[in-house]
Amino acid sequence: MVEIINVQTGRQGLFEFTRQVERAVHKSGIREGICNLLIQHTSASLIIQENADPSAMHDLEKWMNRLVPVNDSLYTHTLEGEDDMPAHIKNALTATTLSIPVIDGGLALGTWQGVFCWEHRHCSGSRNVAVHIGE
Amino acid sequence: MVEIINVQTGRQGLFEFTRQVERAVHKSGIREGICNLLIQHTSASLIIQENADPSAMHDLEKWMNRLVPVNDSLYTHTLEGEDDMPAHIKNALTATTLSIPVIDGGLALGTWQGVFCWEHRHCSGSRNVAVHIGE
Amino acid sequence: MVEIINVQTGRQGLFEFTRQVERAVHKSGIREGICNLLIQHTSASLIIQENADPSAMHDLEKWMNRLVPVNDSLYTHTLEGEDDMPAHIKNALTATTLSIPVIDGGLALGTWQGVFCWEHRHCSGSRNVAVHIGE
Repeated sequence: MVEIINVQTGRQGLFEFTRQVERAVHKSGIREGICNLLIQHTSASLIIQENADPSAMHDLEKWMNRLVPVNDSLYTHTLEGEDDMPAHIKNALTATTLSIPVIDGGLALGTWQGVFCWEHRHCSGSRNVAVHIGE
Repeated sequence: MVEIINVQTGRQGLFEFTRQVERAVHKSGIREGICNLLIQHTSASLIIQENADPSAMHDLEKWMNRLVPVNDSLYTHTLEGEDDMPAHIKNALTATTLSIPVIDGGLALGTWQGVFCWEHRHCSGSRNVAVHIGE
Repeated sequence: MVEIINVQTGRQGLFEFTRQVERAVHKSGIREGICNLLIQHTSASLIIQENADPSAMHDLEKWMNRLVPVNDSLYTHTLEGEDDMPAHIKNALTATTLSIPVIDGGLALGTWQGVFCWEHRHCSGSRNVAVHIGE
């Protein structure tokens, strides 16, 4: 089963969409198998991170913005906005695809893990994630 | 087939568990297919790296500790210990899931590749990795 | 279906091989499923990036070379050449495996996405990528 999930973002940050993925797994009827995700964009990425304490996500984003700042004389790719090249670099440093085993009809995530879309652009409506669920 | 592999860590570092994964592949009886791995934690990660020369792993860890040091005034997420926030960041920069093709009943790894659990905390007993093997 | 794709590199840089992967998908006859890729090396990696504007790839490579320079007194793993240890680190920061859903008999990539082999060594003939395609 393959489908496209649309994740609302709007601004830079981490947006959890674990429940949308869980719904797709339930719909597939698969009890034991694999759920593969691909974000169909080059300036946003996928990440499995702690979804309990928001301070962890806050620090993660702040740290990444310091490592890959908006103003950097190195960039020549600037036509699509000052936040576009940093977004491509952050995309390269994080994940574009994820593969999550399915056990008992649900994602085999750890207790504190959630699935997030990491939006790297300052302004963006939403992002598409292709989801495959198999046995 | 889905199962949970437990990897002993104990301290910060890279811990190879290629043989444990190979054993799961053999047990499945699958000759040609895919082996998917997910580490069920947010302060340890998965990595496929050179398993021949220990100096490569040593430098890799040292480099990462310099990039993501323990003492950084940026961190606000400090309640779970000074090494917890750096662990989340290292987790984001490396892999949480891996997908390794299976050929002739074994992992289709290159000659020098091994599968490692990268423990990012200073003290930790063990880590769980969910393994899915399919055709 | 599992096969090995050989990607010509030769020098440091990003080498797109989306068409070679698409050909493998067509050959498999699978219309809806998953395509998994593993690069069988520890000094080159896989990346899905923008394949439209070459300046994005140029900046990405330049940025990475600044973050992980060739001359660094931290390195002790120097026997295999001055560009070997930086290559291992870049490998750890990017992807070794990718999982791309297949829709309508083709890779479910976004409009601007291409599949690249990122060669991190200065001199190298070619790289092997193990490809698995399943339902």
